[in-house]
Amino acid sequence: MTGVTESRLWRRLMALAEIGAIPGGGVDRQALSEGEIAAWRLVVGWAREAGLEPATDPAGNLFLVLPGRDRAAAPVLAGSHLDTQPNGGRFDGAAGVLAALDALTDLAASGRVPARDCVAVAWMNEEGSRFAPGMMGSEAFCGVRGLDAIRAVRDADGTSVGDALDRLHAAVPDLPRRALGGPVAAYLELHIEQGPVLEAAGCSVGIVTGIQGKKTFSVWISGAEGHAGTLAMAERRDAVTAFARCAAALDAEIGAIDPAIRFTIGRVQVTPNAPSVIAGEVRFSIDLRHPDNAVLDAAGIRIAPLCRERAGPCAVAVTPLVDAPSNRFDPVLQARIARAAAECGLPAMPVLSAAGHDARHLAGLCPSAMIFIPCRGGISHAPAEWAEPDHVAAGATVLARVLADLAYAESLPLTDGAVR
Amino acid sequence: MTGVTESRLWRRLMALAEIGAIPGGGVDRQALSEGEIAAWRLVVGWAREAGLEPATDPAGNLFLVLPGRDRAAAPVLAGSHLDTQPNGGRFDGAAGVLAALDALTDLAASGRVPARDCVAVAWMNEEGSRFAPGMMGSEAFCGVRGLDAIRAVRDADGTSVGDALDRLHAAVPDLPRRALGGPVAAYLELHIEQGPVLEAAGCSVGIVTGIQGKKTFSVWISGAEGHAGTLAMAERRDAVTAFARCAAALDAEIGAIDPAIRFTIGRVQVTPNAPSVIAGEVRFSIDLRHPDNAVLDAAGIRIAPLCRERAGPCAVAVTPLVDAPSNRFDPVLQARIARAAAECGLPAMPVLSAAGHDARHLAGLCPSAMIFIPCRGGISHAPAEWAEPDHVAAGATVLARVLADLAYAESLPLTDGAVR
Repeated sequence: MTGVTESRLWRRLMALAEIGAIPGGGVDRQALSEGEIAAWRLVVGWAREAGLEPATDPAGNLFLVLPGRDRAAAPVLAGSHLDTQPNGGRFDGAAGVLAALDALTDLAASGRVPARDCVAVAWMNEEGSRFAPGMMGSEAFCGVRGLDAIRAVRDADGTSVGDALDRLHAAVPDLPRRALGGPVAAYLELHIEQGPVLEAAGCSVGIVTGIQGKKTFSVWISGAEGHAGTLAMAERRDAVTAFARCAAALDAEIGAIDPAIRFTIGRVQVTPNAPSVIAGEVRFSIDLRHPDNAVLDAAGIRIAPLCRERAGPCAVAVTPLVDAPSNRFDPVLQARIARAAAECGLPAMPVLSAAGHDARHLAGLCPSAMIFIPCRGGISHAPAEWAEPDHVAAGATVLARVLADLAYAESLPLTDGAVR
Repeated sequence: MTGVTESRLWRRLMALAEIGAIPGGGVDRQALSEGEIAAWRLVVGWAREAGLEPATDPAGNLFLVLPGRDRAAAPVLAGSHLDTQPNGGRFDGAAGVLAALDALTDLAASGRVPARDCVAVAWMNEEGSRFAPGMMGSEAFCGVRGLDAIRAVRDADGTSVGDALDRLHAAVPDLPRRALGGPVAAYLELHIEQGPVLEAAGCSVGIVTGIQGKKTFSVWISGAEGHAGTLAMAERRDAVTAFARCAAALDAEIGAIDPAIRFTIGRVQVTPNAPSVIAGEVRFSIDLRHPDNAVLDAAGIRIAPLCRERAGPCAVAVTPLVDAPSNRFDPVLQARIARAAAECGLPAMPVLSAAGHDARHLAGLCPSAMIFIPCRGGISHAPAEWAEPDHVAAGATVLARVLADLAYAESLPLTDGAVR
């Protein structure tokens, strides 16, 4: 695809990546940060140029609305998120929001009014790095989690989601507020695969069949502080060495269950974290995923006993946070994506999502589907994250086609008959 | 000892502990912080009331001078430090500075001018928690480490020792500056034991024979960041699980060498430290101590190979920081301390220091000795750190007696003959 890096979508992706840019081509634009507010302003400006109507809701989700003929009909949504990991990349989230905006910009320019509102959406705090766990915006929108509970979550500096949301809304006083939630006719999300399957197969489009199940936990190890030079080894209750034994055992046992398991300790916080003080406390995160819910449950159940066995003289408390079983996306929308790819001559294949996405929650509300594009080496959540311009264009083309089907259909949901 | 909590020394200890007070009776007054500057003002005020002459030097050490008859003679120094660990106690450091000040206050009030200057001293950054490693003030004073290298060290926020020293000096413009270092006739330091020996033996005075050897290291584990949900376990280079294997193996092997070994991993820093990102880097501290230099060397040599064996696909770099062999304190001063305790009817015993102290560096410069007092349960570097008022008084009494011996002796060093 010649000239694809001169396309509006690619130029916008690169412009958005300047906000929160970090060395190595990465992006640090965490949820509800000044950077995300700046990203909103940029994206809202593009939406207004296209004649779309921006709005926000109490959960800090951003909506860019192309009005339809029947404003009372359930809208079609497409999007992803604008926040990144602290050491994140340029495509995770941004590609899905900007591809949806791009498709609506073309629909608006065509002058053909859709049957129902079509909305590009950016969900609040998908990543969950600053405020854990993530997907807060889609959870609140879909009624999975109450807004009060979400507003009470605090970041490492003690700032609450509630305060950060209020600052976000104060920073964009010109944006109309809409109520939280409401009926949705269908949801589409384009995203980088964050895995190696599509690249290895030479496919530019992945038809996502579902999302593997995920459990997360917070583990607290409680020992006793002491002087590194004086307290005898036998008398210590050292939280760091207890952590080391627990983590090594968990990784060896749970990480070896089968090749599809994913077990990660990504965050470790030691108190007081001083070189000559035996640590009194360690808190750490566990992220556990598997496509088979039975395996996931069996692995999750092993965590607390394994920690207790290895913690020696320290106490252990394991708190479950996220418990999201595997889900399957709408088969009719999957078929529609496959047909759109075939019509464009783009090689496509079914693929399971190993990562979680906001589409998991939307799938409980309405027919939903995801389109994956390859990313280099399967790398994401890192500055080296990269999607080829022609893969971005391919995914956006398929998204635009399916979105147009949904925009102009006489009635929704789409039926099998309409596809085959 | 009735009324000992109404003594000047005890009241001053409790007043000083208000500066940087934290819940549970602890103190957070790290080196060169606003709290330490406030502590200086309080102590300097007390010194001026007593007629002592305060001064500072380029390394941020504080001197409170009782002028002697011969101002050109090498002075006698006694003291400790005013900084604490982030989660420290009320006695570690403060007791030694205030006991020395108390003794000089009595000498000044007696009207009998000493033969030479007698100086209470507070050394800069003994603890090494904010700026690592510690004992910077005594190292600079004794020529163990250059001031330029010390000034270049930065804290976690990026502030350098140099900038923090300049701020300290700007905050006390009325304090005369003296040159760094110079000859010293003798050095005494009172300190809590930070171990259980004196308490278990029912001794209120410990005659410190020496300080056990200590090595510290900084270890860097380098892996590769990746997405927690997508990257297969077999393809990961996870720095956290590599750390866990290294730390568990080091603790099991080095911690078991013999009952006198002390092995501590007190600080662990994970990058990027986000729950859904496989960690790309871990840096951690090692603190290793043993009274026998041969055992210490043999243990130190095992660290790098053990880390390399257990780090799996990650790279490891082990950087030695502190390498301080065991030392022995001056036998004449030890005998003098024993005699002073006997004269006062105080039970005393020889004891090895398991913790490092500024006296280690002074011992390379002049005859030096330390007096320990018991602390409850051997606990220090924690809010629960506690010394009984009568133990503080006992140690201070012995310190004052030996300091008076040194203040009025016709010539120094003291000789065996003068003691026996």
